[in-house]
Amino acid sequence: MGMTTEPRFLQACRRQPVDATPVWFMRQAGRYMAEYRAIREKYSLLEIVRQPELAAEVTLQPVRAFDVDAAILFADILLPLQPLGIDFGFYKGEGPRIHNPVRSWDDVARLRPLVPEESLAHVLEAIRLVRAELDGKKPLIGFTGAPFTVASYAIEGGPSKTYKTTKLMMYAAPDLWHAFMEKLSDALAAYIRAQIRAGAQAAQMFDSWVGALSPQDYAEFVLPYSRKVLQAAQAEGVPVIHFGTGTATLLPLMREAGGDVIGLDWRVPLDEGWRTVGYDRAVQGNLDPVALFAPLDVLREKVHDVLRRAGGRPGHIFNLGHGILQHTPPERVQAVVEFVRTYSVQNT
Amino acid sequence: MGMTTEPRFLQACRRQPVDATPVWFMRQAGRYMAEYRAIREKYSLLEIVRQPELAAEVTLQPVRAFDVDAAILFADILLPLQPLGIDFGFYKGEGPRIHNPVRSWDDVARLRPLVPEESLAHVLEAIRLVRAELDGKKPLIGFTGAPFTVASYAIEGGPSKTYKTTKLMMYAAPDLWHAFMEKLSDALAAYIRAQIRAGAQAAQMFDSWVGALSPQDYAEFVLPYSRKVLQAAQAEGVPVIHFGTGTATLLPLMREAGGDVIGLDWRVPLDEGWRTVGYDRAVQGNLDPVALFAPLDVLREKVHDVLRRAGGRPGHIFNLGHGILQHTPPERVQAVVEFVRTYSVQNT
Repeated sequence: MGMTTEPRFLQACRRQPVDATPVWFMRQAGRYMAEYRAIREKYSLLEIVRQPELAAEVTLQPVRAFDVDAAILFADILLPLQPLGIDFGFYKGEGPRIHNPVRSWDDVARLRPLVPEESLAHVLEAIRLVRAELDGKKPLIGFTGAPFTVASYAIEGGPSKTYKTTKLMMYAAPDLWHAFMEKLSDALAAYIRAQIRAGAQAAQMFDSWVGALSPQDYAEFVLPYSRKVLQAAQAEGVPVIHFGTGTATLLPLMREAGGDVIGLDWRVPLDEGWRTVGYDRAVQGNLDPVALFAPLDVLREKVHDVLRRAGGRPGHIFNLGHGILQHTPPERVQAVVEFVRTYSVQNT
Repeated sequence: MGMTTEPRFLQACRRQPVDATPVWFMRQAGRYMAEYRAIREKYSLLEIVRQPELAAEVTLQPVRAFDVDAAILFADILLPLQPLGIDFGFYKGEGPRIHNPVRSWDDVARLRPLVPEESLAHVLEAIRLVRAELDGKKPLIGFTGAPFTVASYAIEGGPSKTYKTTKLMMYAAPDLWHAFMEKLSDALAAYIRAQIRAGAQAAQMFDSWVGALSPQDYAEFVLPYSRKVLQAAQAEGVPVIHFGTGTATLLPLMREAGGDVIGLDWRVPLDEGWRTVGYDRAVQGNLDPVALFAPLDVLREKVHDVLRRAGGRPGHIFNLGHGILQHTPPERVQAVVEFVRTYSVQNT
């Protein structure tokens, strides 16, 4: 941690000067790591997240392997659905499938309130275990899916290209949409609040698929619910990261919804993105995950390009523009960490 | 056509004042129409495009049904691949699959030059048939895929979420990428030129998947080849539309690549998009295709929102932000045409 008492990740979230740009990776624990695959040979994804010792172990793997500047809890954005009464499973080659999608007033009326300390106690226990293991050396990020992205799975029944059923609930049954989002955002707010109370030192809200929406629809149907979840996290006194992809035209509204740090994907050059977001917020990003498969010199140049665009301004957290891809060579993850450290020490 | 000699679609492409905002729909011929499904019961997609009479008939169906302001040739962006020596088929539930994807110097060396008058004579014949049928009453738009989007299919072997193999050719084998793009863009330029010489009165270049790229990668690896195809079309003296999705951060570069008309998707509010593109170009768009499933009053409001943002400025062509979706109710397509005509006559 150098001469400071607080980890550089948390300093950067607050736009304080740091000794080197902090770096971590969305989906940094996962199949591209042999250590993770060894555990996945014995347990399914849901088995891992339901056993705190396993979830903690998987969370710590990339911290040990790559010395990243933050751990992020190993979990899935769909976890809060099951205690609400929305059942799902993961199926090879097709991703998650919801068994009872939310389409009607009855479906919404049937939703149970979320009490994370009861139904998601295993997640909170994993947080306590990770914190104990990290022993103050690295901060732990908790996370939740954003209301729109989680709702899109719950309504569509799985991944979607067009989000047709979700958008049609907005357009054809706006009262139903708002009723569902009210309940869902209450649940996600309770979930992230509980994670922070269990020890998460920062929180990220993933609105991965929000880029499917027009700014007009986002403002009317999504912003208030995202704001509720972000404010619940911020009220606990930790920095909050607000992330989405394909958000070039949504950034001003995402800023309005909230977040100390706004996540950028590679479609927005970091300097332009930061200008749009405003320098009174920190930004996180924004290397294309495919760059980690490129030759080392190309990868180095792309990492440097991101850092050059950040310009040494306090408040940049290095990350990819979306999660690490399967089959990413682990040594390239390591290389990115080193490129970021070396460049930012030399240039800031 | 009112009192003018030229169809309003062509006038709008040239930013001339029109009696009503012209409207047509990307993928306006297709499965959502019973007339089309009747033909598809007997013929595959490739059988239709290879028989000029069938292709012409399908092209004309939406013109007859909805009185749209332009016909667009029924074809597929992958058609030029086969004469180059890249074989493909369409497979239920997975879309197109390339049998011999382009990955190596040998693959590129093996590509044959495209002589559209020989290998794609059926497409040119369909254009002549449609022109004869339309008899000057509506203009016919020819089209080609853009080099990046066509290359992404040829390299990935089918649709992709990450475009990993395509981007890695750029990053790891840039000479190979440029050699392939040189040949491919020559072929696509020859193809659109031949369509115009056969009678297409405007041309659209579809770069549907270009939104996967950072502006930096677009500028280095894509722009020069897109420019070549667009210039080949413009050199024939017809207006050219340059279309992509997810392009919010690419619009200034797409403008630089060329096009009399720049296509916008619904992620960019039309007024902001036009400001970014510049008022010395026309714009096309940009209703979310999902809006056509919405209740009529919501659909009307969304059509009006697009037209209000266009502000009656000459040079707006009404369209969706991407192709018509399967199962779209045909009466909603009709309704959009009527909403556009009524509103734009009353307000401009």
